[in-house]
Amino acid sequence: MNSFGRLFRIHIFGESHGPAVGIIIDGCPAGIPLSVDDFQYDIQRRKPTKKAGTPRTESDTPVIQSGVFNNHTTGAPITIFFVNHDIKSNDYNGFQQQPRPGHADFVASKKFNGFEDYRGGGHFSGRLTLCLVAAGVIAKKIIQKNDKGINIHVQSKVISVGGCTNVEEGIQKAIDANDSVGGIVECKVNGIPVGLGEPFFDSVESALSHIVFSIPAIKGIEFGKGFAAASMFGSEHNDVFIDVQGTTKTNHSGGISGGLTNGNEMVFRISVKPTSSTPQSQETIHLSTGKIETLEIAGRHDLCIALRVPVVLEAVTAIVLADFILMS
Amino acid sequence: MNSFGRLFRIHIFGESHGPAVGIIIDGCPAGIPLSVDDFQYDIQRRKPTKKAGTPRTESDTPVIQSGVFNNHTTGAPITIFFVNHDIKSNDYNGFQQQPRPGHADFVASKKFNGFEDYRGGGHFSGRLTLCLVAAGVIAKKIIQKNDKGINIHVQSKVISVGGCTNVEEGIQKAIDANDSVGGIVECKVNGIPVGLGEPFFDSVESALSHIVFSIPAIKGIEFGKGFAAASMFGSEHNDVFIDVQGTTKTNHSGGISGGLTNGNEMVFRISVKPTSSTPQSQETIHLSTGKIETLEIAGRHDLCIALRVPVVLEAVTAIVLADFILMS
Amino acid sequence: MNSFGRLFRIHIFGESHGPAVGIIIDGCPAGIPLSVDDFQYDIQRRKPTKKAGTPRTESDTPVIQSGVFNNHTTGAPITIFFVNHDIKSNDYNGFQQQPRPGHADFVASKKFNGFEDYRGGGHFSGRLTLCLVAAGVIAKKIIQKNDKGINIHVQSKVISVGGCTNVEEGIQKAIDANDSVGGIVECKVNGIPVGLGEPFFDSVESALSHIVFSIPAIKGIEFGKGFAAASMFGSEHNDVFIDVQGTTKTNHSGGISGGLTNGNEMVFRISVKPTSSTPQSQETIHLSTGKIETLEIAGRHDLCIALRVPVVLEAVTAIVLADFILMS
Amino acid sequence: MNSFGRLFRIHIFGESHGPAVGIIIDGCPAGIPLSVDDFQYDIQRRKPTKKAGTPRTESDTPVIQSGVFNNHTTGAPITIFFVNHDIKSNDYNGFQQQPRPGHADFVASKKFNGFEDYRGGGHFSGRLTLCLVAAGVIAKKIIQKNDKGINIHVQSKVISVGGCTNVEEGIQKAIDANDSVGGIVECKVNGIPVGLGEPFFDSVESALSHIVFSIPAIKGIEFGKGFAAASMFGSEHNDVFIDVQGTTKTNHSGGISGGLTNGNEMVFRISVKPTSSTPQSQETIHLSTGKIETLEIAGRHDLCIALRVPVVLEAVTAIVLADFILMS
Repeated sequence: MNSFGRLFRIHIFGESHGPAVGIIIDGCPAGIPLSVDDFQYDIQRRKPTKKAGTPRTESDTPVIQSGVFNNHTTGAPITIFFVNHDIKSNDYNGFQQQPRPGHADFVASKKFNGFEDYRGGGHFSGRLTLCLVAAGVIAKKIIQKNDKGINIHVQSKVISVGGCTNVEEGIQKAIDANDSVGGIVECKVNGIPVGLGEPFFDSVESALSHIVFSIPAIKGIEFGKGFAAASMFGSEHNDVFIDVQGTTKTNHSGGISGGLTNGNEMVFRISVKPTSSTPQSQETIHLSTGKIETLEIAGRHDLCIALRVPVVLEAVTAIVLADFILMS
Repeated sequence: MNSFGRLFRIHIFGESHGPAVGIIIDGCPAGIPLSVDDFQYDIQRRKPTKKAGTPRTESDTPVIQSGVFNNHTTGAPITIFFVNHDIKSNDYNGFQQQPRPGHADFVASKKFNGFEDYRGGGHFSGRLTLCLVAAGVIAKKIIQKNDKGINIHVQSKVISVGGCTNVEEGIQKAIDANDSVGGIVECKVNGIPVGLGEPFFDSVESALSHIVFSIPAIKGIEFGKGFAAASMFGSEHNDVFIDVQGTTKTNHSGGISGGLTNGNEMVFRISVKPTSSTPQSQETIHLSTGKIETLEIAGRHDLCIALRVPVVLEAVTAIVLADFILMS
Repeated sequence: MNSFGRLFRIHIFGESHGPAVGIIIDGCPAGIPLSVDDFQYDIQRRKPTKKAGTPRTESDTPVIQSGVFNNHTTGAPITIFFVNHDIKSNDYNGFQQQPRPGHADFVASKKFNGFEDYRGGGHFSGRLTLCLVAAGVIAKKIIQKNDKGINIHVQSKVISVGGCTNVEEGIQKAIDANDSVGGIVECKVNGIPVGLGEPFFDSVESALSHIVFSIPAIKGIEFGKGFAAASMFGSEHNDVFIDVQGTTKTNHSGGISGGLTNGNEMVFRISVKPTSSTPQSQETIHLSTGKIETLEIAGRHDLCIALRVPVVLEAVTAIVLADFILMS
Repeated sequence: MNSFGRLFRIHIFGESHGPAVGIIIDGCPAGIPLSVDDFQYDIQRRKPTKKAGTPRTESDTPVIQSGVFNNHTTGAPITIFFVNHDIKSNDYNGFQQQPRPGHADFVASKKFNGFEDYRGGGHFSGRLTLCLVAAGVIAKKIIQKNDKGINIHVQSKVISVGGCTNVEEGIQKAIDANDSVGGIVECKVNGIPVGLGEPFFDSVESALSHIVFSIPAIKGIEFGKGFAAASMFGSEHNDVFIDVQGTTKTNHSGGISGGLTNGNEMVFRISVKPTSSTPQSQETIHLSTGKIETLEIAGRHDLCIALRVPVVLEAVTAIVLADFILMS
């Protein structure tokens, strides 16, 4: 469903070309300073780049509807929405009949019997990640410098694009090929206390991967050595403790043991598929005629959506950690 | 927490060296034929192999405590437990002070202030996956030949061990090195209807990865092309529809679009780290003295825990799909 | 928390004197016809009466932000909010220091460390029941004439005011005494299928009472004979079956057996306390000075809030039944 | 479903005449001293009285299967079950066809398509309240003398039987009439901090009534003045604050304002219907023949089930409060 979290709970809503997208943040403690300005830095980081981004321009100004009074959280649910301004829905006429490869058009239409708001991907649009970023801003405040003496720092970056570890090179490759391209995003978390995560089913990896896979276009996640661990010997992979605080000589586990944070840096990576809306012409089926036809996707799209993912990944990571910290 | 699922709900309990491990399956429809014999095939598949498995021998006989009457499910919660017989807890004395690298000993002791049952890994033990297999047997009955006309088939296998795609070769490599080794397990699901999964946060990938990462030793998951997708162009990665049922020419998405099943084969892979209890001697910290000491792990352990994972992976996959099907 | 329901899930937000109050309805099936006009009838029924109601006038116009497209539900979360227009917040200055008897002022301030939005009761205000009415309109559509052949009808009315079974008489009594007054509201539900409710903890009474007690001012609930049952013999109280459909000669159980609907009319009553904001002057403590002082409550209030409860009670009843029906 | 609670979570299972009934308590903090002896006092209080109780004798010995090690809770789920010994299932043959008035026989059979375990009421049996008592013992330890300085005391008693405020008199009335009889049970809670309860939907009254109505035979609940409040004026009903700690002159609200505990004594009452299994002969329908027939209920039953409710009511109250305290 459209809810996530146990104590720090978020509920997301909205469609790409509807009136607005938004989010309720429930369970946020009272007394946290919060104003519209606090959202600007992270929202700005999510904006498309000039070189490889969509030409759709949205102000992305957060409108706070509830839960904030005198510039502090009140303990009541915080509702934030973002009005959709720059909508060109006509670009999307016909996609119910000619489903775009890689997109949710086909499955959404089957699931919702044709009643789905198909414009711009509707509720499946990457635009909803803007709401995650907003919730992440609040979550970061909870996990940083809080009164339990915790000061967690989350940082994400793109580490490869289109197979190139030089991001610029990968983007240029896509531009040259007139095609979209995928990428890998890494997240590192420092200052994390020992023991976050809840056995048996709410391991840190479980909670993080759960929310990570709600970000559109993500197709893989790995912690620490991840898939490379499968090729290692135990004596190689094991992280040896070197002090009584639990610091380890290596960090192959990515800072998670037995599903719980072990106090070392948390490290994980996610795979972002190439934007499905490629500038290349494609084939697809026409659902009424049953004929294969050529499809040109107008709309306005990012060449490499991975570039916009880091701040979203930080946000969902902070959301998960805020929830675990409130539970601990 | 120790619960998973929305309508088909499981609650797990028990410790490796306590009286028993077990599971409640709540939300199972009434009238499904069920007897103790039904569990034998999958339980047998989870048993350690002679060549690379632990010498601990357990009968693993399911004891049904509730929810079954006249060999049919009643609609009330089904409780199944497995008595622990072959326990040698003395092997584990001292691990609270000398935490085993790669294990949960250290984090569990910090989280539970030294009150955790540390024997054999306690509640963090891989022995609890036996309970998942039991729940999986029931989940498979729900997704196979059910009265909605659905007949889903889930099949998992090890596709590499220690970097070798020949499993035997990988095991031999571990035996020769007198070390434990990791592996990769793949799962394929056929007969799946279009549209399972619930936006925004309960995508199929979200639900599957959530429960997969509660299986001990898993460090990565990828769907379809997974991490390889990050190096591809959109025009390569996109799966082109070839008929009005949504069949696609390729299946790079692994049968999932927009977080929903698209009717094509679902394919995903997980990375299993090498068993942390390697036969090699290791170093670790002594928490009281603060000195680094050498650690020999007695206990009884699998050289390659990945070999026992396929039936567990099938089980958790069936559990997720049963829940989605009851919701649909 | 601010969420209720398992499949038909609602999330409520907003404060009496903030920008808006609103609700997300998640889990609503796609394809239900829905427009702003559909809400008018029930919203109108919740409005204050001229004789005994608050002079605050609000347009109460629902603004649909998501989940509706081409006048049908889409299957995505439906967000509805109501802008607060007629706000006189100055009336509420000082209530943090001089907590109003019977109100949440004191407990809210303790719970939220003084950060709560205290204006007009903030998030504790009866104004939020407007959102329940909106969700109820949608829930009623689900339980009426649905494709499972179910057609449930919910109807509530005030059956006593201030101890008088003639409502007019009770109101006049309050006006004459220049005081607020309580009342009892009854709800009857017809057309209900056998077997709604989920053992052990989600009995129909459990789910109904849970949401009923989130309506401000409710202090009791009883089903069927309710408290009178405690004085009866078993042979008197038992409802004898008279046909194979389960019709009973009497209906002392109020249509619920073993926590499940039994197909007979469901009947229950709730007690609504007198509006805490009485026109009478009262005493209260001044939290800074510790002195008892006299308090005159300006603000704008209903003499008998029970009069506005029936449509709210219908709404929450429909919400519970919609959830159970989607689960069945 | 068969789960209750957010952080202190319980999952109940079992049938009256199956192998056992039991409960998992998840979310219990580690380090609480716990042994089998701790359960004896409250379990003893739940036993039937000689004068008005069922002749079924069960040892009711708790078997702890998990979550306790070295006589302390470990932080892992605590599983407790009670073997069913004194079973006479033949007494229940035929009740699927001749549903007992007032019992769940008819609704259970409809809901579970005849697959329910009907023996002794199966999963609907009052025997499951034994599990609630066990969980209550642990919950009481959490809310008493805990490290947040909280020391809450819960106490329940029968305040009327069959309309008589002298309990003995009410029982004698039932014995003389050879009939079962109902009663009213009151619960008082002292030492409760200000601010427990979570707006909007998880008021203290919501949470308490939710679990109270899962106890079989309960038909009403009221807080403070309850139904009598409906006949009062606001100036009468309001509780005036007399000190800065929030003590009030009267306690008509029953210690709850705005859905939150206000620090004054919490007081509420529940109505228990007469035991449905009366010694009187009754009529019922035969579902196969459609004929009304006379029914004599053998089985073994309490004349006044209300007598056994106080310790159960204490238990569920403690369960709710433990959950709120862990959340606070």
